[in-house]
Amino acid sequence: MTSKKEIPYADLKRIFHEPNRLAIMTALAGAPKGCSFTDLRGTCALTDGNLSRHLKVLEEAKAVRIEKTFVGVKPRTTVTLTDDGRQPFMAYLKSLKEVLQAAVRAVQSGHKPATSQSG
Amino acid sequence: MTSKKEIPYADLKRIFHEPNRLAIMTALAGAPKGCSFTDLRGTCALTDGNLSRHLKVLEEAKAVRIEKTFVGVKPRTTVTLTDDGRQPFMAYLKSLKEVLQAAVRAVQSGHKPATSQSG
Repeated sequence: MTSKKEIPYADLKRIFHEPNRLAIMTALAGAPKGCSFTDLRGTCALTDGNLSRHLKVLEEAKAVRIEKTFVGVKPRTTVTLTDDGRQPFMAYLKSLKEVLQAAVRAVQSGHKPATSQSG
Repeated sequence: MTSKKEIPYADLKRIFHEPNRLAIMTALAGAPKGCSFTDLRGTCALTDGNLSRHLKVLEEAKAVRIEKTFVGVKPRTTVTLTDDGRQPFMAYLKSLKEVLQAAVRAVQSGHKPATSQSG
């Protein structure tokens, strides 16, 4: 057991840490009224299949809500970030920030000078 | 094709993005003379098996160098970040920072006020 401040690597919840899901969550976080499936697919540069697969994971975790409606005769799928999704996502971003800061500090502290060292 | 500035989700190289490997790379980045396997295992809170597995991935990518020596009769394994590992790790951290900033901006812009909205 250590008393030092722990860097929260364990908090990098896999559900949000996966790059495509991070992109999806970011797009949804900035769209309180939700995004259409089509817009989300374009914003995140994903195929239909990949977007569906990631949304399923997020929906099962209750992080997003998926609603199917009709605009005239055209079906529309709207994806919205839930409050249950926003809170853990914000917690994830906080942990990610700490982890990133620790890494940047480490890189800066461990950076070798340009001149070579003996030994 | 879009002209807007792309957020570099694709740059989140899986090799460094995995939380345990991110912890390992951070520990090594701050230790120019390397870390012993034992210290690294403690710092990153990993089992022997997990640490070995992640180090193998990093070694195959030439991101770390693993050296076995003897201190008296005791074997010691020292792991060092290579220059070939430091550069892409720094690039990864730069991309991670951009991705994080985009997510934080999105969360802030999309945050709903405490009072409920109609409609």
